[in-house]
Amino acid sequence: MARIILVTGGARSGKSAIAESRTLGLGPEAVYIATAQAFDAEMEARIAAHQARRGPEWVTHQEPLALVSALDATDGKPRLVDCLTLWLTNLMLAGRDWQAAGRDLVAALPRQSAPVVLVTNEVGAGIVPDNRLARDFRDAAGVLNQWVAQAADEVILAVAGLPLKVK
Amino acid sequence: MARIILVTGGARSGKSAIAESRTLGLGPEAVYIATAQAFDAEMEARIAAHQARRGPEWVTHQEPLALVSALDATDGKPRLVDCLTLWLTNLMLAGRDWQAAGRDLVAALPRQSAPVVLVTNEVGAGIVPDNRLARDFRDAAGVLNQWVAQAADEVILAVAGLPLKVK
Amino acid sequence: MARIILVTGGARSGKSAIAESRTLGLGPEAVYIATAQAFDAEMEARIAAHQARRGPEWVTHQEPLALVSALDATDGKPRLVDCLTLWLTNLMLAGRDWQAAGRDLVAALPRQSAPVVLVTNEVGAGIVPDNRLARDFRDAAGVLNQWVAQAADEVILAVAGLPLKVK
Repeated sequence: MARIILVTGGARSGKSAIAESRTLGLGPEAVYIATAQAFDAEMEARIAAHQARRGPEWVTHQEPLALVSALDATDGKPRLVDCLTLWLTNLMLAGRDWQAAGRDLVAALPRQSAPVVLVTNEVGAGIVPDNRLARDFRDAAGVLNQWVAQAADEVILAVAGLPLKVK
Repeated sequence: MARIILVTGGARSGKSAIAESRTLGLGPEAVYIATAQAFDAEMEARIAAHQARRGPEWVTHQEPLALVSALDATDGKPRLVDCLTLWLTNLMLAGRDWQAAGRDLVAALPRQSAPVVLVTNEVGAGIVPDNRLARDFRDAAGVLNQWVAQAADEVILAVAGLPLKVK
Repeated sequence: MARIILVTGGARSGKSAIAESRTLGLGPEAVYIATAQAFDAEMEARIAAHQARRGPEWVTHQEPLALVSALDATDGKPRLVDCLTLWLTNLMLAGRDWQAAGRDLVAALPRQSAPVVLVTNEVGAGIVPDNRLARDFRDAAGVLNQWVAQAADEVILAVAGLPLKVK
């Protein structure tokens, strides 16, 4: 069973850069599995900024929903999944059963022969959101984070760009 | 003086499960002091989900306001207070002096002969809330957390279901 | 090169008290560089509460924008900058180039002969804000935190009033 690493943190906490560096430390070439979908110009700019930072050692796969298939199809090189929170958003917007998808992901991790580094977001440390949808989303994000952290060999909390070891 | 443990974390960070496991590690039977009040169906569902996870080794007390009396009345077995943030909400909604109540709580902890594990929420790590009430609440929650952390022997931050030792 | 310490944390996480204690540990007298501007009564009350806690060993400078000049002008005694997040807010409200200002700050830190302790806020661990301005602000705050953390010798995360060593 290959190494599974979860990197969590708030917005702009440096979690993607930490995860990229960890992934490249696991092999000379790596696969970037992007779950982001650009719905508007703001999102396009965020995706472009992330891509600009990555070098030619990365192959990029875009996969907003079928994350398990993408992992199984790219096994052999270290993979970076960025990020679980957008994946969850995509699942919910598409009306999918995110709990079933999350359980499938957790089941798929042990069968990978090459390492997987997953990025996720801390979204539950602010004031309780006013609207039900936001509360349900942050609950789901927290549960998904717990499931993947349980399955991971290593869990890192990004704080101001620095890694804090949690597991 | 018995062991006092504070478990803090964001929403769905796994803090209740960590606190439950720590409490049961301190004695074969434990008392669950629930501060939650169900005002609506969503809240009822959250409370029911929490109760469903706990086993028969727990005796449950519901006490939205008189937390110190509940602690003094149940001394002898390990107690889990879940959670301080809802207690604070209840105090504020009832027009009570939360600072006086918080000081009473801190004064009551050293006289307990059996351990007390307290769960609380991190609510201050998001963007500054738009409305004054939410800002005042997160200030109060942060102050209460500091008071109890000061009085605790151990403070744990829950991150993705995992305990990070703070004190 | 003098010691540079960054103290980050959520609202009312005790970061200012930790930073004050660290600063006074670095010299018998210290300079408090306040970036806060009182726009309303609520803000005035927050500033007054902070000042009331500090003793006579502090000299206070108020500097909402020209932080680098304030640092250069006060070199010789330990300085506490409280806080970077308000400074960023001030820069943005004044229509300044916060990225250029942030780079100037990072460049100014190594030339200080006396220590600098900087307080900043975690604002990115809640749910994604509804409005663009808040999203841009939390992105900028996160980036600035990363820059200063990179330049710092020590980075501390305040949790419930307790310091958690990050770097």
